[in-house]
Amino acid sequence: MAAHHLILLLLALIASSSSPAAFAADPNQLQDFCVADTNSNIIVNGFVCKDPNLVTENDFLYRGLNHPGNTANQLGSNVTLVFAQQFPGLNALGVAGARLDFAAGGVNPPHTHPRASELLVVIKGTLYAGFVSSNNKLYTKVLYEGDAFIFPQGLIHFQFNNGKTDAVAWASFGSQNPGRVDIANAVFGAKPPISS
Amino acid sequence: MAAHHLILLLLALIASSSSPAAFAADPNQLQDFCVADTNSNIIVNGFVCKDPNLVTENDFLYRGLNHPGNTANQLGSNVTLVFAQQFPGLNALGVAGARLDFAAGGVNPPHTHPRASELLVVIKGTLYAGFVSSNNKLYTKVLYEGDAFIFPQGLIHFQFNNGKTDAVAWASFGSQNPGRVDIANAVFGAKPPISS
Amino acid sequence: MAAHHLILLLLALIASSSSPAAFAADPNQLQDFCVADTNSNIIVNGFVCKDPNLVTENDFLYRGLNHPGNTANQLGSNVTLVFAQQFPGLNALGVAGARLDFAAGGVNPPHTHPRASELLVVIKGTLYAGFVSSNNKLYTKVLYEGDAFIFPQGLIHFQFNNGKTDAVAWASFGSQNPGRVDIANAVFGAKPPISS
Amino acid sequence: MAAHHLILLLLALIASSSSPAAFAADPNQLQDFCVADTNSNIIVNGFVCKDPNLVTENDFLYRGLNHPGNTANQLGSNVTLVFAQQFPGLNALGVAGARLDFAAGGVNPPHTHPRASELLVVIKGTLYAGFVSSNNKLYTKVLYEGDAFIFPQGLIHFQFNNGKTDAVAWASFGSQNPGRVDIANAVFGAKPPISS
Amino acid sequence: MAAHHLILLLLALIASSSSPAAFAADPNQLQDFCVADTNSNIIVNGFVCKDPNLVTENDFLYRGLNHPGNTANQLGSNVTLVFAQQFPGLNALGVAGARLDFAAGGVNPPHTHPRASELLVVIKGTLYAGFVSSNNKLYTKVLYEGDAFIFPQGLIHFQFNNGKTDAVAWASFGSQNPGRVDIANAVFGAKPPISS
Amino acid sequence: MAAHHLILLLLALIASSSSPAAFAADPNQLQDFCVADTNSNIIVNGFVCKDPNLVTENDFLYRGLNHPGNTANQLGSNVTLVFAQQFPGLNALGVAGARLDFAAGGVNPPHTHPRASELLVVIKGTLYAGFVSSNNKLYTKVLYEGDAFIFPQGLIHFQFNNGKTDAVAWASFGSQNPGRVDIANAVFGAKPPISS
Repeated sequence: MAAHHLILLLLALIASSSSPAAFAADPNQLQDFCVADTNSNIIVNGFVCKDPNLVTENDFLYRGLNHPGNTANQLGSNVTLVFAQQFPGLNALGVAGARLDFAAGGVNPPHTHPRASELLVVIKGTLYAGFVSSNNKLYTKVLYEGDAFIFPQGLIHFQFNNGKTDAVAWASFGSQNPGRVDIANAVFGAKPPISS
Repeated sequence: MAAHHLILLLLALIASSSSPAAFAADPNQLQDFCVADTNSNIIVNGFVCKDPNLVTENDFLYRGLNHPGNTANQLGSNVTLVFAQQFPGLNALGVAGARLDFAAGGVNPPHTHPRASELLVVIKGTLYAGFVSSNNKLYTKVLYEGDAFIFPQGLIHFQFNNGKTDAVAWASFGSQNPGRVDIANAVFGAKPPISS
Repeated sequence: MAAHHLILLLLALIASSSSPAAFAADPNQLQDFCVADTNSNIIVNGFVCKDPNLVTENDFLYRGLNHPGNTANQLGSNVTLVFAQQFPGLNALGVAGARLDFAAGGVNPPHTHPRASELLVVIKGTLYAGFVSSNNKLYTKVLYEGDAFIFPQGLIHFQFNNGKTDAVAWASFGSQNPGRVDIANAVFGAKPPISS
Repeated sequence: MAAHHLILLLLALIASSSSPAAFAADPNQLQDFCVADTNSNIIVNGFVCKDPNLVTENDFLYRGLNHPGNTANQLGSNVTLVFAQQFPGLNALGVAGARLDFAAGGVNPPHTHPRASELLVVIKGTLYAGFVSSNNKLYTKVLYEGDAFIFPQGLIHFQFNNGKTDAVAWASFGSQNPGRVDIANAVFGAKPPISS
Repeated sequence: MAAHHLILLLLALIASSSSPAAFAADPNQLQDFCVADTNSNIIVNGFVCKDPNLVTENDFLYRGLNHPGNTANQLGSNVTLVFAQQFPGLNALGVAGARLDFAAGGVNPPHTHPRASELLVVIKGTLYAGFVSSNNKLYTKVLYEGDAFIFPQGLIHFQFNNGKTDAVAWASFGSQNPGRVDIANAVFGAKPPISS
Repeated sequence: MAAHHLILLLLALIASSSSPAAFAADPNQLQDFCVADTNSNIIVNGFVCKDPNLVTENDFLYRGLNHPGNTANQLGSNVTLVFAQQFPGLNALGVAGARLDFAAGGVNPPHTHPRASELLVVIKGTLYAGFVSSNNKLYTKVLYEGDAFIFPQGLIHFQFNNGKTDAVAWASFGSQNPGRVDIANAVFGAKPPISS
């Protein structure tokens, strides 16, 4: 990773992404499905279920993942979450996903997923990706089209498009809501600031 | 779904696929990672772990998902599993995936995943997909590029390429080994036969 | 298993049983008990709880399992479910059961339980029982009074009364709602039909 | 419950049963099955698995539950455990059972199951059964043939044959090894004694 | 443990403490937090969540653990529970605690925690502590300031201040509501009485 | 929090602590206990168990938590872990703890626990503590002796001794090995460096 990459990374750490993107092992389901009623004013661990008699095939469908995310931002990257909040059919089913888009040089800055491990597959382009174990050992790889990499639950990881073209990847998670903690945003961009 | 599709489906039920492909909520991990030692003669629920001191970045990498599966078979489809058996880095991390390839008219016949729900994303082409609830209600959709569909754990489901071109999809699962039970194979192709 | 048994089995696959009967590992309970309020219009994973101050000993009791199920049907069998839906006291407690009745020659056709393994005990009579692993290996036994057999979660299994008298069995499950997917009904009897 | 019953109960508390009998929510299985190798010198949470290539149908079978337990003892009762230790096929599958035999006047004295709730079904005879919630409220019922009762995980419960004939019951548990803590034995019969 | 200790223990078994204090592995959280709304009339496994927009830092704070519990009672001990009921911020987070106070000679009589193991740390003084395994083996230790002891889930255990001064300890549990079953109270003080 | 505190925090972020300290919901236990054999060359999720026949009361005891940690370091703080690695008796029991020591002005810098929530109790002194939610909202409190605070699983949190005297706290976790990811160390101190 060359020097300008480091700068990008630091930039990423200091600058701030507004696109959350995050990714465990949920409690088992207790019926065939429990489509989230995301508008209910009754809030539980996960979501309350829509009346199953009103559930149709449309509740199990999520559209638009063929649309590239907008990478015209400071980070040159975009994350499209497909969690239970966005795709209510996932509620209680212990799985979620995300589409990742990168411009050339784009970065998905260091972050963690508090509630799930992430299996990343590169659909297009090249990504330099890695994670840091809890004893501070860095594991990295340059990933090409068709490569998959696994980021264990809660460990800090990142991806960087070190190629000359756009890159696209798909992330799989073992939780309906793995969460995402963006390190730079959380440390330097918390509201109120940590130092106040 | 036209008549010849039904024939294909029946064919699928009577014929037999040798490509397993399957997909729950695993026990939580108790350390950062536990890369499977798939050659150990000590067998546990999941796999025993490789010595973490010998683990390298290569253990977190799986290659070759850009290669189309061979669909020149009776079903016109192919499933490439990325479970802990194939990708030892997934062990204890509660997530897995699979690449699905379909020739035009190809079918991934009715099957279940005993230990996980499946989140399917269509990468290319068109798929007619559906599942049957435990009270025998069928939920189906025609899926286009960028569409995602969720198949709840243990329910019978299928995909059929009703388009004129190849189709490719990626499946995400909330278990390192969701398993796959192919209905026709299990009922009509068990060894020894059920009726013997 | 003689030829007419195969016919019965095929019959079972093509015909259709209206008696669901099915059978995992649920989330842990977070209080002593949570008796299901099965009439609540608030639907969650499992059931919301009845006010514990209104709970009486009657909520922990389920009656009538001494009554033989009616086997005067095409399958010659009957399944009486004792799941959280039928026995609200089971909610959140991770266990359920079922009584199985068979006329001579009766069959409980191939089915799966998406969310639990099943421990079957023969109370009376003789049963030919088996399951098919996900690599299509068939494991079968003739079970006599006092024999127990285990069917792992999500695998296709069946029982057939190959004796000359009625048979009765009790099934134990590690989930409050293991579910049941009847293979023939789901594949050939779904509404709407899979082929439509 | 008449006075002599209380005496029996106290007797049960002071006397001591050598027949353990106990009954949670286990970690999910990560493969079709994991038959316990109960003789292995490698000890894990649960049991290590027998080589699956050596597994036969006999591993899924447990015999002899038609034999009445010997109730010619101080308590007039007997518990036959069917846990993973006794039935290795149950390992990793989250379910277990037990046969309970009672002579007239026999008692299964106050005990708990640290790792599972218990669903009891009376097969024959009459039982006075109950449990005490953690706020010391007693819930009891007289159970007749065909009645089922649920004892929540970890709560003190008991059964007493208040009928004139033998009684038999079957217990279902949501754990492969629910455990059993016999209150009187643990408090007064521990080795070494609690007071030493 | 001298004779008068035994008497105390028996006293403890016959007398009765009204201070519950108890201590599993809960379902995973599905969002950052789910502060309990303990006043809601909607009752679920655990608690429904307070509207996250109304959650403030005060919801994550519990005060007053520096205040000694009142040990001027028959047992000479006091348990201050910090479970989800007392500290709503713990809901869905799988952890709880308790402060234990002992006068000289005070006892926390034999009890179990149905839904969690307990890690006890002695902050001040000396405690004779122990638990009984399900095969009735007693494990005990005299604990001094700075000593920690582990009581496995559901097993009967106790602590006794065999020192000349007050003693204080902190208990950690892996459940938001581990529960507590006081053996003497449950067996001899249930309402209605077990013998009625 | 005054300016020099911010400097300390930044210092903490740039400098580096060598004391790991970290902190979920583990799989349930399948026997009374499973004391870790931390020297075994067989590695599983968690640890293999010591032969239960060789287990003594000493296996359930951990000593020395009355000894203050050495805070004569750059951070002015010290964390003494009591996880399954350090206290083998905790293995499979889903609970762990840690002692935290702070010099005046000492800081436990921003970190996460990938596998458990943390319940912190202040034993002595004053701590300014807080965490950042995944949508970057900061929740903080000044904690005094006897105050408890909860840090949800995987979220970035910190403690700072803003008092004039030493401070001591005890952390409870719902996992035998919650892990600890020190943000500054992981981002700036990884080996090899992230930027290499």
